[in-house]
Amino acid sequence: MNLLLLHPDDFISADHVQIRGRRLRHLNTVINANAGDCLIAGLLNGKIGKAHLLTINSDVAELRIELTEPPPTPLPIKLILALPRPKMLRRILQAATSLGIKEIHLIASWRVEKSYWQSPFLEAEKTREQLILGLEQSIDTQLPDIHLHPRFKPFVEDELDTIAAHSTRIVAHPRATEAIGTAPLNALTLAIGPEGGFIPYEIEKFAEFGFVAASLGPRILTVEVAVSSLISRFAVNLENDDRSTHN
Amino acid sequence: MNLLLLHPDDFISADHVQIRGRRLRHLNTVINANAGDCLIAGLLNGKIGKAHLLTINSDVAELRIELTEPPPTPLPIKLILALPRPKMLRRILQAATSLGIKEIHLIASWRVEKSYWQSPFLEAEKTREQLILGLEQSIDTQLPDIHLHPRFKPFVEDELDTIAAHSTRIVAHPRATEAIGTAPLNALTLAIGPEGGFIPYEIEKFAEFGFVAASLGPRILTVEVAVSSLISRFAVNLENDDRSTHN
Repeated sequence: MNLLLLHPDDFISADHVQIRGRRLRHLNTVINANAGDCLIAGLLNGKIGKAHLLTINSDVAELRIELTEPPPTPLPIKLILALPRPKMLRRILQAATSLGIKEIHLIASWRVEKSYWQSPFLEAEKTREQLILGLEQSIDTQLPDIHLHPRFKPFVEDELDTIAAHSTRIVAHPRATEAIGTAPLNALTLAIGPEGGFIPYEIEKFAEFGFVAASLGPRILTVEVAVSSLISRFAVNLENDDRSTHN
Repeated sequence: MNLLLLHPDDFISADHVQIRGRRLRHLNTVINANAGDCLIAGLLNGKIGKAHLLTINSDVAELRIELTEPPPTPLPIKLILALPRPKMLRRILQAATSLGIKEIHLIASWRVEKSYWQSPFLEAEKTREQLILGLEQSIDTQLPDIHLHPRFKPFVEDELDTIAAHSTRIVAHPRATEAIGTAPLNALTLAIGPEGGFIPYEIEKFAEFGFVAASLGPRILTVEVAVSSLISRFAVNLENDDRSTHN
């Protein structure tokens, strides 16, 4: 938790908050925060700044806040991801959020086990927890949106074109002969398959909607490593376009 | 396990191997392999090719092998990493291996808990297991070397310059003002700190030996995400130098 992420419910006046629960425990047991400390804080979907710790005990902490700075610029990458197995999903959502992704579509694929869609980790409250952890880690406040698409064909035929509008379209495919180039990008829609990859039919459906299959190289990565790797790999091309994330 | 990684002990003749233990269980329970199947195989630190499954039961599998291709080109990045906590270390070693890193130096740092150095996961046999899993995942055969440096100052003063010889020297530092450029690189030595980062003294010591502090952007990543992200980020600059990993 590199950022104390504040929710509207925390406010007791325009510039005072009270913190309880998980965040309070973190302040007490991990950060060992004391009255007088100054922390980095931000309002969910709002600005970032300082929080001055006025009082803290095991029940509640009270802080005076000054939020003056905008959050980091979102990465203009929409992520389309074959639903990973639940245990991996949590880490992947945190990682993608910490890298600055703001829109995630979890989709069906031939190699995604149908039972994954019944996982309690997919409930909105549970995925939101992971997104919040990713924001707290990365000192960001803008909550990503997650969309679930449990049927592949309707997703591709009815929604994909709209989602990817005005962006470069890439589907990561370990067996693709095309390497990822270094051409500047304005915005990207990036599709990543399950462990084992998308099947040829799925790659063809993506191709119908303008998605180019591209490979990161000869090595096959786990989905978790591929997500961080591909996002970071393409962030370079977005920087080349001067839409820097280093502002 | 995308590659059946063979060890010299597996060979019963020049082109026949017998597989038992973990790899056999994987063939039986995950891949559901049957006699007649053709698998991707490679010899540890050797070539890659095909393995024809002749017989398989719960005790042993026998395969005929044809190893004809070289393994993927190593990524010319040496990784210097403040020792992560043991649970993370395993995943990070797998990830770095799967990305093509061949030399990893685990070092002390102010923010590394001393107790981590006593972890059983640091024993050579245990770290080797993680490296092997990374190779099996990524279809590579060249085992990375791991070096342990439990004292920061002697490491920097006596060893760092030799390790980083003839390479670009970067220390990842979230608070650095310098962004990672896109200048072509021949080879890179990349130092990554612990959660919370290197302390100023440590950054200064790296600077004494020519390491430039550079930031991935305004977001703070976990060490695990930072490792995959930074390696992939710099791989672009190495590709620009035409030392492509996409060959």
